[in-house]
Amino acid sequence: MTLLDGKATSEQIKLEIAEKVREIIARGGQRPHLIAILVGEDGASQTYVAGKERACQQVGFDSTIIRYPDTVDQSTLLDKIREINSDPNVHGLIVQLPLPKHIDEQLVINTIDPSKDVDGFHPENFGRMVLGLPTFVSATPFGIMELLERYKIETSGKKCVILGRSNIVGRPLANLLSQKGYPGDCTVTICHSRSKDIKSITLDADIIIAALGVPEFLKGDMVKEGAVVIDVGITRVKADNKAGFKLKGDVLFDEVAPKCSYITPVPGGVGPMTIVSLLKNTLRASGN
Amino acid sequence: MTLLDGKATSEQIKLEIAEKVREIIARGGQRPHLIAILVGEDGASQTYVAGKERACQQVGFDSTIIRYPDTVDQSTLLDKIREINSDPNVHGLIVQLPLPKHIDEQLVINTIDPSKDVDGFHPENFGRMVLGLPTFVSATPFGIMELLERYKIETSGKKCVILGRSNIVGRPLANLLSQKGYPGDCTVTICHSRSKDIKSITLDADIIIAALGVPEFLKGDMVKEGAVVIDVGITRVKADNKAGFKLKGDVLFDEVAPKCSYITPVPGGVGPMTIVSLLKNTLRASGN
Repeated sequence: MTLLDGKATSEQIKLEIAEKVREIIARGGQRPHLIAILVGEDGASQTYVAGKERACQQVGFDSTIIRYPDTVDQSTLLDKIREINSDPNVHGLIVQLPLPKHIDEQLVINTIDPSKDVDGFHPENFGRMVLGLPTFVSATPFGIMELLERYKIETSGKKCVILGRSNIVGRPLANLLSQKGYPGDCTVTICHSRSKDIKSITLDADIIIAALGVPEFLKGDMVKEGAVVIDVGITRVKADNKAGFKLKGDVLFDEVAPKCSYITPVPGGVGPMTIVSLLKNTLRASGN
Repeated sequence: MTLLDGKATSEQIKLEIAEKVREIIARGGQRPHLIAILVGEDGASQTYVAGKERACQQVGFDSTIIRYPDTVDQSTLLDKIREINSDPNVHGLIVQLPLPKHIDEQLVINTIDPSKDVDGFHPENFGRMVLGLPTFVSATPFGIMELLERYKIETSGKKCVILGRSNIVGRPLANLLSQKGYPGDCTVTICHSRSKDIKSITLDADIIIAALGVPEFLKGDMVKEGAVVIDVGITRVKADNKAGFKLKGDVLFDEVAPKCSYITPVPGGVGPMTIVSLLKNTLRASGN
């Protein structure tokens, strides 16, 4: 069993990006600049945005956080997005989700210029991804594709089962992994809350991607010997420690890992890959 | 075994659309208007466009065909599309594919205003479809979803195998049938040229959609008793008749049909549903 070490891989990719930034600056180019808009005081959102800012600094990007109270007007937010859209000194723009209930999240996403939408959530970018056209692939699926590629996991003709049909993980992965090329050409099955007899489906899978958000859903008796398992789940579960919670994946690691050829740990698997994917998208948005 | 009669169903839908058009006109509304751009003299393309024009006339839509020789400049074509985009008297615009090699097909598609793109091929509309947002779903998948619905085929929790990953049929259907709601909530597997042991996969399926374009690919011994089979294939195969060809589906009908609960014939199954889906999209584009 080999651990798919997202932490080490992401550190390697950050070095590669930092090297590219040095080259850009050396030839007189513009430093990539990412803006994150953060609304409200949600703890998890603050943590995510801080992590993104830190990653930007590590690779030499400019990074700006624009904060609004959770009472902000929708129109104020949309005006700011339009202003950033037309600012040539900003290459990437993300709006940390979720937003307060009085704001139309889809409208906010639709207002971001697709050429700066480094989260890849705009319908045009999403459509381009599904159609196999060049685009910004959203961070979590992009990170998983990169991890498969860096570890040279064989995908062509493999049976890949995706647990979860969310628009940010399961659905994009189902589309990417069934496309022509590498990593892709899988025979993909997408399962969800209405699927029946999931165990018989996962038992037949060469590659399993667990993205349901149900802690420890995938048990040892649901996985065949030699499978590749990617755990996208990160659910906060109450714990008797300083933080008051522990992160749990969708995979019961201790049972599943011994049967796997490759498996991601939680934490240190998919999570760190997500942030570097955002960096790669921002680099690309800056024309590099 | 029940035949999924696309011809009869599409005639019924045309009557419903014609009734709506009469209501629109009665209340002083604008008659829906579809423009089709046809480049070159390809026989199949001419037939398709003529069929679309006839269908428009049947339901009371205005319809215009704009013809160009296959030597047309790309810029001439793009200028015409932009002109139509800004014409309030046109609601739907389709460009019949394929286009001559010197024209960038994707660029042509991207130039059509998404609000008039009744083929649903623009990346923004495609993205909205995959994300489950209101949009124009392209005609063939839309027609198949409608056929399943009109025949009240149970889909929730069913294993659905889609043969073919094309962007116009297999891929949209995989996304639509795995979404929440009806017809949807299927556990969808998408197979393609790189898939292995397809027979074991189709044998386990409750619903099979054959969209490979390989005549008579699906044989009797690949289907379980009671399956629902949708045949999207229409390949022209040489024949000793007046036309010089016969249309063959992807399903070996005589073997497969006796095992099915429901099956589409070819012709008279999916084909007629495709044209009425285009009409439904045009009606919607006209604001009705």
